[in-house]
Amino acid sequence: MSRIILAVDPYGDISVDEITKRIDIVKKYIAGVKIGLPLLVRFGMPGVKKIIDVAKDTEHVILDFKLADIAPVMISTIEPFIGTGANEVIAHAFIGLDGALKEFKEYIDEQGLKLILVASMSHPGSTDIMDHVLDKIINVVDKLEPYGIVVPATRPHIIQYVKKKLLSRNIDVKIYSPGIGVQGAKPGSALRAGADYEIIGRSILYSPNPLEAASRIAHIHDEPVSLR
Amino acid sequence: MSRIILAVDPYGDISVDEITKRIDIVKKYIAGVKIGLPLLVRFGMPGVKKIIDVAKDTEHVILDFKLADIAPVMISTIEPFIGTGANEVIAHAFIGLDGALKEFKEYIDEQGLKLILVASMSHPGSTDIMDHVLDKIINVVDKLEPYGIVVPATRPHIIQYVKKKLLSRNIDVKIYSPGIGVQGAKPGSALRAGADYEIIGRSILYSPNPLEAASRIAHIHDEPVSLR
Repeated sequence: MSRIILAVDPYGDISVDEITKRIDIVKKYIAGVKIGLPLLVRFGMPGVKKIIDVAKDTEHVILDFKLADIAPVMISTIEPFIGTGANEVIAHAFIGLDGALKEFKEYIDEQGLKLILVASMSHPGSTDIMDHVLDKIINVVDKLEPYGIVVPATRPHIIQYVKKKLLSRNIDVKIYSPGIGVQGAKPGSALRAGADYEIIGRSILYSPNPLEAASRIAHIHDEPVSLR
Repeated sequence: MSRIILAVDPYGDISVDEITKRIDIVKKYIAGVKIGLPLLVRFGMPGVKKIIDVAKDTEHVILDFKLADIAPVMISTIEPFIGTGANEVIAHAFIGLDGALKEFKEYIDEQGLKLILVASMSHPGSTDIMDHVLDKIINVVDKLEPYGIVVPATRPHIIQYVKKKLLSRNIDVKIYSPGIGVQGAKPGSALRAGADYEIIGRSILYSPNPLEAASRIAHIHDEPVSLR
């Protein structure tokens, strides 16, 4: 069972067909793909649908627009993707419940999609404000019961802290961890700290040999936790 | 000088051409338009460009994707809009500086675009987390010196609080205020509390008579502050 979520962000002048080709090549090693705004703005809905089509038989087809708006805007943003095969959506926990995440969660529950909430981020600036209110963010997670949360591999102590809090409060969510590779964290390090999935983009998709890169990371993930 | 920013979100099965027609009708009464993700996902870049083209001779052509990601992702999201005529971009202050807003601000400064940071939001859930860290958010605004900030009309005491803080620290930013109309605040109420612009969408764009609605609100805005 793979623990790799492939972030499919376009770099340079790569075409959407080249990206789908590379996804297809590494598919047996990945648990899913994560599609962001850079891809949407470049290739539009037709481009996003091409990515979804090639990724559809993986478990997680994630729309990562880092939604952080009032409920009607978030619902209206996701509506056109209903029925495309995308099955998970990322939004920010910090925007709070009433008028935002509460109604949005009700909507995507009805549509059979799963919600993933950003709890903390991979860049240093996440410590300016977000990490000061991590306990409040965990309260939002506790109340909303999303399917998963995002916690960065670049600060493994945050993964450990969140994991401990989740366990002590019996909150059952998957932990998705970005920041592996180009952003500095080593493959396997987030799983070791308690994450369920590592979100990896450039170091697979833009490797000279994506298949080899994906297979190498999958094998690191297969090692016993103590060795990763 | 108009204080109306027209939020151009699609509702129902309205076409992008119908939206541009309505913008054109109310143009003499508005200071600018605000384009969000619902429009982008429905009509793609060609649709966004149609909106920008009709709005280009207003002062503010705002991309409101509520950006809240690491710097490379936010930059890559905005890159395709450089040169289209869009001249302002909204991002969340919450995400912090290093690795996010700092590098993003440098990029959009170079490109001649202006940054607007969300300080507080119009829905009740904004009080769950965001409003607890309003002072930290104002610190981010102070350090980054964006062109504007977003503060909601639905909680005018927040506008007053932020305005006072800005004045006492000599921070010169425009205040954009959403939440007028359908969300509950009365036209003129945010200006009276200290805002520079009121962001108004449905109550103009989806009025049976958009011209009459825009003109009515513009006249309220023209009244002396004490009467609004």
